[in-house]
Amino acid sequence: MSSADRFHGSRVLVTGGLGFIGSNLAARLAGAGAEVLLVDSLIPEYGGNLFNVGEIRDRVSINISDVRDEHSMRFLVQGCDYLFNLAGQTSHMDSMSDPFTDLEINCRAQLSILETCRRYNPGIRIVFASTRQLYGRPDYLPVDESHLLRPVDVNGINKMAGEWYHILYNNVYGIRASALRLTNTYGPRMRVKDARQTFLGIWIRLAVEGKPFEVWDGDQLRDFTYVDDAVEALLLAAASEEAHGRVYNLGGDRPVSLKELAELVVVANNGGEYSVRSFPPERKPIDIGDYYADDARIRAELGWEPRVPLAAGIARTVAFYQEHLAHYL
Amino acid sequence: MSSADRFHGSRVLVTGGLGFIGSNLAARLAGAGAEVLLVDSLIPEYGGNLFNVGEIRDRVSINISDVRDEHSMRFLVQGCDYLFNLAGQTSHMDSMSDPFTDLEINCRAQLSILETCRRYNPGIRIVFASTRQLYGRPDYLPVDESHLLRPVDVNGINKMAGEWYHILYNNVYGIRASALRLTNTYGPRMRVKDARQTFLGIWIRLAVEGKPFEVWDGDQLRDFTYVDDAVEALLLAAASEEAHGRVYNLGGDRPVSLKELAELVVVANNGGEYSVRSFPPERKPIDIGDYYADDARIRAELGWEPRVPLAAGIARTVAFYQEHLAHYL
Repeated sequence: MSSADRFHGSRVLVTGGLGFIGSNLAARLAGAGAEVLLVDSLIPEYGGNLFNVGEIRDRVSINISDVRDEHSMRFLVQGCDYLFNLAGQTSHMDSMSDPFTDLEINCRAQLSILETCRRYNPGIRIVFASTRQLYGRPDYLPVDESHLLRPVDVNGINKMAGEWYHILYNNVYGIRASALRLTNTYGPRMRVKDARQTFLGIWIRLAVEGKPFEVWDGDQLRDFTYVDDAVEALLLAAASEEAHGRVYNLGGDRPVSLKELAELVVVANNGGEYSVRSFPPERKPIDIGDYYADDARIRAELGWEPRVPLAAGIARTVAFYQEHLAHYL
Repeated sequence: MSSADRFHGSRVLVTGGLGFIGSNLAARLAGAGAEVLLVDSLIPEYGGNLFNVGEIRDRVSINISDVRDEHSMRFLVQGCDYLFNLAGQTSHMDSMSDPFTDLEINCRAQLSILETCRRYNPGIRIVFASTRQLYGRPDYLPVDESHLLRPVDVNGINKMAGEWYHILYNNVYGIRASALRLTNTYGPRMRVKDARQTFLGIWIRLAVEGKPFEVWDGDQLRDFTYVDDAVEALLLAAASEEAHGRVYNLGGDRPVSLKELAELVVVANNGGEYSVRSFPPERKPIDIGDYYADDARIRAELGWEPRVPLAAGIARTVAFYQEHLAHYL
């Protein structure tokens, strides 16, 4: 039985459902016969894109609304068996220039969703998309879940609060919830218009457009999770009793330098140019340096492992945007 | 030179300035010749009380407003050299029954104050009153600043965000700020009407009134900082270059069991009765068990140490309420 099959016939709500990870998750769930309801705000700066669900359009329900809209959420969570809570403001820079919007979405709306579940659907199971940004600049590598949380931007602080509301509501009220601390997730349907979701998006866009892209500090090490692997982790966390009240790092195939990653993009694209430059001084205070996760906990407790090697994942991603780029600009 | 003397002639803003710690701090600062402006909302469930500043009323300025009032704060922070940022919602139970008010005060208003400082007074120095509640249930004792943060109530989560906004604005924008993670602070002028600030308050009130008080799980260990020692730590943190961007635990004289503490109250009061009962089941999920701080960092870096022994502090506190209880009911 695939990890998606157990959702057959279940009612599943996905916030951020028209976004990158949400739409890939939706395709998996719809394929397994789940009753899928996607909620998305379609805020232009975020990841929602109707093209992401083009192929499954007739097998999912879509509700355009915002997680900040309490009344909408109050109606939508009722009767759902699962909530994949993926909606969020993801841009580090936007969180610094407009910290209150980040707070309203990543912090207040999360508390509001949980209060709504507590009152109107306490039997729901929730998986929250958290982020490695909570750790800030690592003390040691790889970073496990025992690493201190020391966020370096407003986004990281608000996501930290959002994650902890979930764990708290699990522990105090028995609203079953877990959180995945995602690292760089990549793959088809990610935002490539700009670097708001990941810098890899803008690299791929420029490479596919035949334009040079910029690599900042090419020696930095990072890890990358292919979206299918991230979706698998979400499904495992939602289905597992053991996950309740737990936080899990996701890792990737292996740590790579940004220079090596850039090479993989060029190879996958059959050509491309990039320049390596030093980190822009204005970004330096919120840069975290090298990062890669120790994901032993989720491997041991939920049996997850990344299955898509980086080169293969990059190749599939570049191929997707070679075909569909126009829908993402 | 006393640690307060360096504030002579400085303009000092204290949020929560009519509250327990704020008013004790104000007396120290006014005595040293600082120009003190106290901001307080006087929300009846919180710690503000005009009687707290009765003796210094003609040596401080008072502005009744709320830290959630952006325009008020924007005006008030301008021209100040120091901000002691003590205003907050402190009740764990209230944070669970009304999580959004806690979020607005402990989280959003903090971000707002920092944004205001960044725009209108970037040279200000800030000390933020944080709390041991961020740690949740300790993994080990004593708890140092390297202990993971795992708050067990909404208040702890929001204070965690509030603390990190301060550290972030220090690190990214150079708004000099530090945070003290207070443990149970006690002394004259604390709220004794109920247990919203500390359970010790209601114990002392009942003892002074000649009524029995309840001790929950008398074997639990806690530490207690006498308010003069907490004030000294605030002054040291504000004045020290080394403190910028740092968080510090405050500890107390020594860890004591709640039963021993109850005995101290009875002795100081020349009589009193209490009963020991098990922890109420509905409070259990947000109870943290034993806690006491390792405060080696602030001792080493700022030269702080608690000077008031617990028995002496309790005696002074009980004597204060024997004289002034009527003003605190």
